[in-house]
Amino acid sequence: MNTFGRFYRCTTFGESHGKALGVVIDGAPSGIPFCEDDIIPFLQRRRPGLSPLSTPRKEEDMPEILSGVFNGKTTGTPIAIIVRNTSQNSADYEPLKDLCRPGHADYTYDARYGHENRDWRGGGRSSGRETVARVLGGSLAAKILAEHGVTFESRIVSIHGETAPEKFESVILAAKENGDSVGGVAEVRVRGLPAGIGNPVFGKLDALLAAAVMSIGAVKGVEIGDGFAAADVFGSENNDCMRSDMRSDSSSPISTISSDSSSPVKFLSNHAGGILGGISNGNDIVIRFAVKPTPSISKAQETVDTDGKNADISVKGRHDPCIVPRILVVAECMTAMTILDSLMESSSAKF
Amino acid sequence: MNTFGRFYRCTTFGESHGKALGVVIDGAPSGIPFCEDDIIPFLQRRRPGLSPLSTPRKEEDMPEILSGVFNGKTTGTPIAIIVRNTSQNSADYEPLKDLCRPGHADYTYDARYGHENRDWRGGGRSSGRETVARVLGGSLAAKILAEHGVTFESRIVSIHGETAPEKFESVILAAKENGDSVGGVAEVRVRGLPAGIGNPVFGKLDALLAAAVMSIGAVKGVEIGDGFAAADVFGSENNDCMRSDMRSDSSSPISTISSDSSSPVKFLSNHAGGILGGISNGNDIVIRFAVKPTPSISKAQETVDTDGKNADISVKGRHDPCIVPRILVVAECMTAMTILDSLMESSSAKF
Amino acid sequence: MNTFGRFYRCTTFGESHGKALGVVIDGAPSGIPFCEDDIIPFLQRRRPGLSPLSTPRKEEDMPEILSGVFNGKTTGTPIAIIVRNTSQNSADYEPLKDLCRPGHADYTYDARYGHENRDWRGGGRSSGRETVARVLGGSLAAKILAEHGVTFESRIVSIHGETAPEKFESVILAAKENGDSVGGVAEVRVRGLPAGIGNPVFGKLDALLAAAVMSIGAVKGVEIGDGFAAADVFGSENNDCMRSDMRSDSSSPISTISSDSSSPVKFLSNHAGGILGGISNGNDIVIRFAVKPTPSISKAQETVDTDGKNADISVKGRHDPCIVPRILVVAECMTAMTILDSLMESSSAKF
Amino acid sequence: MNTFGRFYRCTTFGESHGKALGVVIDGAPSGIPFCEDDIIPFLQRRRPGLSPLSTPRKEEDMPEILSGVFNGKTTGTPIAIIVRNTSQNSADYEPLKDLCRPGHADYTYDARYGHENRDWRGGGRSSGRETVARVLGGSLAAKILAEHGVTFESRIVSIHGETAPEKFESVILAAKENGDSVGGVAEVRVRGLPAGIGNPVFGKLDALLAAAVMSIGAVKGVEIGDGFAAADVFGSENNDCMRSDMRSDSSSPISTISSDSSSPVKFLSNHAGGILGGISNGNDIVIRFAVKPTPSISKAQETVDTDGKNADISVKGRHDPCIVPRILVVAECMTAMTILDSLMESSSAKF
Repeated sequence: MNTFGRFYRCTTFGESHGKALGVVIDGAPSGIPFCEDDIIPFLQRRRPGLSPLSTPRKEEDMPEILSGVFNGKTTGTPIAIIVRNTSQNSADYEPLKDLCRPGHADYTYDARYGHENRDWRGGGRSSGRETVARVLGGSLAAKILAEHGVTFESRIVSIHGETAPEKFESVILAAKENGDSVGGVAEVRVRGLPAGIGNPVFGKLDALLAAAVMSIGAVKGVEIGDGFAAADVFGSENNDCMRSDMRSDSSSPISTISSDSSSPVKFLSNHAGGILGGISNGNDIVIRFAVKPTPSISKAQETVDTDGKNADISVKGRHDPCIVPRILVVAECMTAMTILDSLMESSSAKF
Repeated sequence: MNTFGRFYRCTTFGESHGKALGVVIDGAPSGIPFCEDDIIPFLQRRRPGLSPLSTPRKEEDMPEILSGVFNGKTTGTPIAIIVRNTSQNSADYEPLKDLCRPGHADYTYDARYGHENRDWRGGGRSSGRETVARVLGGSLAAKILAEHGVTFESRIVSIHGETAPEKFESVILAAKENGDSVGGVAEVRVRGLPAGIGNPVFGKLDALLAAAVMSIGAVKGVEIGDGFAAADVFGSENNDCMRSDMRSDSSSPISTISSDSSSPVKFLSNHAGGILGGISNGNDIVIRFAVKPTPSISKAQETVDTDGKNADISVKGRHDPCIVPRILVVAECMTAMTILDSLMESSSAKF
Repeated sequence: MNTFGRFYRCTTFGESHGKALGVVIDGAPSGIPFCEDDIIPFLQRRRPGLSPLSTPRKEEDMPEILSGVFNGKTTGTPIAIIVRNTSQNSADYEPLKDLCRPGHADYTYDARYGHENRDWRGGGRSSGRETVARVLGGSLAAKILAEHGVTFESRIVSIHGETAPEKFESVILAAKENGDSVGGVAEVRVRGLPAGIGNPVFGKLDALLAAAVMSIGAVKGVEIGDGFAAADVFGSENNDCMRSDMRSDSSSPISTISSDSSSPVKFLSNHAGGILGGISNGNDIVIRFAVKPTPSISKAQETVDTDGKNADISVKGRHDPCIVPRILVVAECMTAMTILDSLMESSSAKF
Repeated sequence: MNTFGRFYRCTTFGESHGKALGVVIDGAPSGIPFCEDDIIPFLQRRRPGLSPLSTPRKEEDMPEILSGVFNGKTTGTPIAIIVRNTSQNSADYEPLKDLCRPGHADYTYDARYGHENRDWRGGGRSSGRETVARVLGGSLAAKILAEHGVTFESRIVSIHGETAPEKFESVILAAKENGDSVGGVAEVRVRGLPAGIGNPVFGKLDALLAAAVMSIGAVKGVEIGDGFAAADVFGSENNDCMRSDMRSDSSSPISTISSDSSSPVKFLSNHAGGILGGISNGNDIVIRFAVKPTPSISKAQETVDTDGKNADISVKGRHDPCIVPRILVVAECMTAMTILDSLMESSSAKF
């Protein structure tokens, strides 16, 4: 399934070393100003090679909008955007093509599709490069939401357990020098979303966000608000109480209050991360997620080849020793697509 | 969105104090032996009142299959199953109907649907009782999977931070006596799933599982395999290496090996929780999730009423001080539906 | 696939002689007044036994709303409605259970699901009685649309080629006396739908309507507007020209005009049946469809049994010699669900 | 909605005079040999300019596969294919950009998306050129089906009421000389599909085919088998009786027989067009559809402009006076996608 969303639907395609990656965005409103320049800053945030901590590959990702935009505005018809692959060097991967890289999807793709059908060049579809297409789709979602006052912020919470930002670089470099890699925890925060967006039961906003973020390659855990910490406190500590600044002689129904950004009702805390019963409550939406250490390491490891024989492997080449910094924009984009989708669902019943 | 799954599709309905809860299961194979007796053990596992730790309500949940089963076997047409609500006492909720219970969905449902349209009796659709319908749908999924050798196990990992099972009861009772509640962490483990089930990108098995489990009312965090702990170790520690017992003079492609339950290729660890690149690798699938403390507590708390005025609230009545024990079967059922759905997707391209 | 619609989603279930038929309606707006009395008139229109032309079976179809309605209004959560089967006499079908009735789905269900899994009682899921659930789902759709000024009208165009209404009865009775059956053509007309509802390409309103109506058991052809007759005329005859009553010194963009029911722009004809490029143009939507003669006839016919052996068959019992009159309300209901779904899709991008 | 299918999912994009048209095919099996040369013959069949009857535009449609194919075979990941637009001359359309062409979607697109957001160049997304993307998606579907023995044939049934093929050309030329256009009726026939493919109720194979074909721009009516003619005959004439060649001392269940292409059970006629109860019966699937006359004619017609004022219009330029010949391959492709999708659904429950 390569389509994300039910209302704002992004269908992505593309392999790491194929001709191009891309997205078809279906369901976007018409009349939104949109052009390549809106996308480029998002692509640059996921670009490697911007710091010594990232892979030295230089990806010059230039987006090209093929359809759905006319005179600088969306038309309401599907918007196809592609990014051509240009700097790939598949020869690097030739020695690995018959080995199952530990921590990678080689073994499972072979099981699913047959080894002879796996594009081994740069990891093919299972490469982190696949996220280029997510960023294409998310850049428009973020723009639409920004016009409605909904904005995104993301940050690194920790790298390899270290929470002091000034130490992130040294932690990563130490691992790299050792032929190893590290992971971390990151957070996306959504500001300005009114209360009342989302759905009960299976379409809960937190459920959709969990799927959105967990679908990013290296993510192994997701939590909303206090998340796992909520499991260790009392109900009286975890509940977010409410208080109203409304004058005691007036009154106004919650359904009116909550859609007002200057609502007199405030939550006294935000342990819930902005979602109750699957529906936004007007507080910041807070999503945190765990990123595993990059599986491509130059340290030798035991594995098998695609004939089922034992082998040793050492993955050389230009690999990020830590992808947490680059994953932030991808997580923001997935969050933006999810939020917009729920917003559209909520709107569909109002006509 | 009240339908779960794309192939094995469960559409649920029902409110806590409405006439009935139920599910329509669409897409199940024909010829599966299935009757009410297959469901009852599942319902009993989520039943309250079985221990002093649970609510003293007595829910006599009797399932009734309305369609899709003939002569004791599924026909391939949709299977509707209902459970009538019988022991509900809505009067308990009358004093709360115009208050926004902290930690509950009252405020957000009002924002979404309008206060006058919210069924406040027992929490309506946002009640934990909604999970009865999930169990109805999951019981058939689990049965079908069991016929294919796929089984489920679940356990409580911790209650309020306490990991020693013999102390769970005292931790819960202490909270209850204090008018408070506790949460915990639980785990579902899937055994016997062959490699090659799941999908790349948005339909990753871990992404679908995250959504499945996070869609359960009180769940605030989900992790696969080592989850958040993976963020703190080196790549060389987190990668699951492989080794083959195959005789060195023979060979067999991975795609054949991995679908064989007596595969000669073994993973030396299971940090990944059985999933690589969104696709099962033949190891146990391991999902852990955080359950928040029950929001209904008798301790007084600040809140607002549905007119936006300040109020104090104390939620009396028969509420579980900890729902972790009852949630296990629900999480197993959601996992079963997800696994079956991915298995069917994988089969759809083989004809 | 037993779910219809993407926004207003109706999932139906039930067999002719099973315990109950029903629907789960998901996605309906909250706050719509709705109760069993809104449904009964629709069910009565599809009821047999109201005239000598229909089957003498007496179906006392009493709907029961199980969820999603509170204090007489929809809550926004799924609305489950069931109708218990009461007057079925499965013994009538016992002699036929191992025969493939010509014109029926016995042969194809056996091929799809296995003969041993087919509920042969009254045709099971393939029975026309399945449409009860469509009427349940359509009755709410029609009510919602009526509140927005969209109404439905249906009529019989011809019975067995006869177009004079006063002769319909005698044509049907003549067939019946001969142990035979007849079909006909019917039309549904939608009034009051504003321009701009529908979608390009695969979600064209006419494509969705074609699927909706063709999904009714005995329907073998569908046309929109002039339909097949349009194939035989010149472009200059088939195009619907437009004329404006707007004063020549004023102007207003079409997108504003067309959503105004008192639009100054008029089409001079309606060959297109109200749809251009898949989107409504403000004219009446006109759908016509062909209903085949009832396949259950008492005349003897050649067939095979489920072991593949030759047999003769004569279908005795209470069967309509012509189902065109009863199908009108079903076609209206399918049309209403389709129109509402497209209306909700069009609304989803406006927020 | 620009995605077709639930299992074999084709998402199309592109405008008549935009940069490119294309498709993303998601869900195709892995290991299918596929390259541009498989597509080109399909594109050539829909190409204009091949006879004096078609538009003299010369479209050099060269497909480019961007993803999902490796070493000449499908990988199981999404297959993106684009065709760049090269020979478009938007200046031809400049004089028409503020007029609502009768029979076209200008008026309704303006109502749906706003006039300022409509790509008027060559009709934009509502152009018949959109079908290029359908042919891209259908070419792979047809190839996959051919490997399973399922093939397609299409033919023109009539042009402007004329059924003698040798007169088609003169009928079209006569209309053209008169500044007018003609329509016709065409038929697609599917051979080799085994019994048991399709679904009951809303996913009926005939319902899906009706939507598939009706979604093609100029199609105004669809019928299966005898279609509208079935409405005028008796049940005893319309039912397709069955006869078995099986030796009388043997027996075999229908579910086994019907999946065997050399089945001993034969239908004595095919009034049903190969579908009973929404499921294939092993006979040829027969779909017929009505194509309206091309709306672009040079004869002057009354219309309005996008400010709602009266105007006269004469559509000059390179337009087909009859598109029936070019639509055949599009209808085949839509049929192929539909059949493959149903085949995959039927397979999903067999694992």
